Amino acid sequence: MVYLTRLEHFNAAHKLYNPKWSKEKNEEIFEGCANENWHGHNFDLYVTVKGEIDPETGFVMNLKDLGKLMREYVIVRLDHKNLNLDVDFMQGKMASAEVLAIEIWKLLAPKLPEGVQMHCVKLFESHRSFVEYFG
Amino acid sequence: MVYLTRLEHFNAAHKLYNPKWSKEKNEEIFEGCANENWHGHNFDLYVTVKGEIDPETGFVMNLKDLGKLMREYVIVRLDHKNLNLDVDFMQGKMASAEVLAIEIWKLLAPKLPEGVQMHCVKLFESHRSFVEYFG
Amino acid sequence: MVYLTRLEHFNAAHKLYNPKWSKEKNEEIFEGCANENWHGHNFDLYVTVKGEIDPETGFVMNLKDLGKLMREYVIVRLDHKNLNLDVDFMQGKMASAEVLAIEIWKLLAPKLPEGVQMHCVKLFESHRSFVEYFG
Amino acid sequence: MVYLTRLEHFNAAHKLYNPKWSKEKNEEIFEGCANENWHGHNFDLYVTVKGEIDPETGFVMNLKDLGKLMREYVIVRLDHKNLNLDVDFMQGKMASAEVLAIEIWKLLAPKLPEGVQMHCVKLFESHRSFVEYFG
Amino acid sequence: MVYLTRLEHFNAAHKLYNPKWSKEKNEEIFEGCANENWHGHNFDLYVTVKGEIDPETGFVMNLKDLGKLMREYVIVRLDHKNLNLDVDFMQGKMASAEVLAIEIWKLLAPKLPEGVQMHCVKLFESHRSFVEYFG
Amino acid sequence: MVYLTRLEHFNAAHKLYNPKWSKEKNEEIFEGCANENWHGHNFDLYVTVKGEIDPETGFVMNLKDLGKLMREYVIVRLDHKNLNLDVDFMQGKMASAEVLAIEIWKLLAPKLPEGVQMHCVKLFESHRSFVEYFG
Repeated sequence: MVYLTRLEHFNAAHKLYNPKWSKEKNEEIFEGCANENWHGHNFDLYVTVKGEIDPETGFVMNLKDLGKLMREYVIVRLDHKNLNLDVDFMQGKMASAEVLAIEIWKLLAPKLPEGVQMHCVKLFESHRSFVEYFG
Repeated sequence: MVYLTRLEHFNAAHKLYNPKWSKEKNEEIFEGCANENWHGHNFDLYVTVKGEIDPETGFVMNLKDLGKLMREYVIVRLDHKNLNLDVDFMQGKMASAEVLAIEIWKLLAPKLPEGVQMHCVKLFESHRSFVEYFG
Repeated sequence: MVYLTRLEHFNAAHKLYNPKWSKEKNEEIFEGCANENWHGHNFDLYVTVKGEIDPETGFVMNLKDLGKLMREYVIVRLDHKNLNLDVDFMQGKMASAEVLAIEIWKLLAPKLPEGVQMHCVKLFESHRSFVEYFG
Repeated sequence: MVYLTRLEHFNAAHKLYNPKWSKEKNEEIFEGCANENWHGHNFDLYVTVKGEIDPETGFVMNLKDLGKLMREYVIVRLDHKNLNLDVDFMQGKMASAEVLAIEIWKLLAPKLPEGVQMHCVKLFESHRSFVEYFG
Repeated sequence: MVYLTRLEHFNAAHKLYNPKWSKEKNEEIFEGCANENWHGHNFDLYVTVKGEIDPETGFVMNLKDLGKLMREYVIVRLDHKNLNLDVDFMQGKMASAEVLAIEIWKLLAPKLPEGVQMHCVKLFESHRSFVEYFG
Repeated sequence: MVYLTRLEHFNAAHKLYNPKWSKEKNEEIFEGCANENWHGHNFDLYVTVKGEIDPETGFVMNLKDLGKLMREYVIVRLDHKNLNLDVDFMQGKMASAEVLAIEIWKLLAPKLPEGVQMHCVKLFESHRSFVEYFG
């Protein structure tokens, strides 16, 4: 079993805001992240898959193909978007890195080639803060 | 003459949109950056100053003080903000990295201690794209 | 279960020196790290915690709060300090990254909010050398 | 149990080419990586070992010694080499990062000091693509 | 005047070898870089241009367009290639980073939009070694 | 004219302390950096030289040789040292990054090969703070 990881990027706006709470409570809990006019990030997305090596190719899967899957099913839906307003699969959810990582897992897991399994979605919101989801 | 540089960060939303143009022309020129619902970045801001070394301290100026000036006069006005909507000194201007770098220079240059001069504002919009302004 | 990681920094002096050994043996085993006059590092500290997502916030815990805990209980006790001389919880211990990582775990684990558990303390002594402790 | 990681580098040429296939099939599967005239990379090699702390040293093992083992048994055999032509332990194998990571594990595992075990070989082919092998 | 910089990557094989010299002299001067079977690198290419800001766009030029020019005129000719064998504009020249940086300048300078000038080609052969050419 | 840059590292302890001042004034001016028991850093040292390309080698000078000069004349005198106590050329001087950069310039400039000139000494005390000296 070998683990492969690919990095892709997206830039997006979001805010952390619970519509069930008052503006004051949102600002108390989320501080600047609750700014009604949005803020944003350069997100770094690392996806790790695992599987056996195919002796014909030396690959678990082609890492370029993993990058293509990430761009086709995830990045085009998030890049230069507003996570709260523009992204269908985030509707009605909190736009946190935790929630987003789980949704990215759900989008990618069914698209992997046979014999290859999702291992981890690792999402950096900044170089100081990241989340990981292992399914 | 020695040059000192300090890095500070801010996260912000913006869009590139010329209100004199149609939506179509904005999208043609700015592509995803024209998204009406905003996108955002982790901006890395490097400010470089220059001066002679004070023999009492070994410093041109205290780099921590440069960081404090950057946070007090620039970062608090930009971090977790919308560059188009929330930032007074960007009103009526295009929210590009180029324009923002020049405005940051104007904010900081008058705040430097005597004998220390601004040399460069270097602003990364992503790890692949940055601008520099030398006054 | 989602894993959250936060990075904080500290700069410190230390030496690797076993007082039961001769100076010669210390220099043989620890080479330059045994320099009696100390050397130092910029340490990068990554702390990873894990827990379930709170549906009200979308957070396992607020990553800014994790940063605050790290600064309050760890960073202020290590930053700009001498690990051998200035740090009470390192007294009588070897000032290695391994030992320090375990002590940092002990300091932080009791401070986490209910429902959130320590997963890993990862401590970089340089970009080429780091240690991890999982409890 | 504490985990220690050391980074070493090597620069090498390689191609991905299955000699049982036609040139066309190789180019279809491996695209640019099949270029007969080779391409190359700066490889970053992270090796992680694990063990108990020796109370005399505060070390699981000396990280400098881990670096020496990596350079003596791996780096000198790969640095400024052609992975397909120059490296004896890669003969008859596909020169992929996956295969190389496994071979590096085999080279290093028998060389570790008593009480210290291999945990992971992590090999970056670029900052966007890496593989991990855990034995 | 504002300066814009864009980063693009390419992976290539090369060797440093002067055909007028003996194999021994090549190995004496270039050491491992003279390996007849090639070695390779992940090259990081930063191109800096300068110009006045267009008030309609806030741009000196669109940094995405600079990236497109770099990919169209430089990267496709170098990525996954052998600098000595595959690259027409390097024929008969030493395949050093210095020479390559000058050739990249020559390729890109005529392609810039009116009013925008080349300022610097900065080429990293590794994270420890890079060259800069200012025309 | 082409510019070449090489990165080398050293880890050192220091303090910022003016012996003509009281302990209180030192702590007021230098804050934590005045800690009598020292603190330390991983210093990143970039040295840039400039010259014409030798057509026989394609080099301004061999970047590996620049690294050797840096290690022989600078790094061995600073690595795992106390800048205030152990380093002869820093005696009687403030141990600031500014002063150290100028001293490094003085050590290296006379050692460069004929036809190659020093251009810049760039010294990072942390990833957020660095100084540059151009002679």
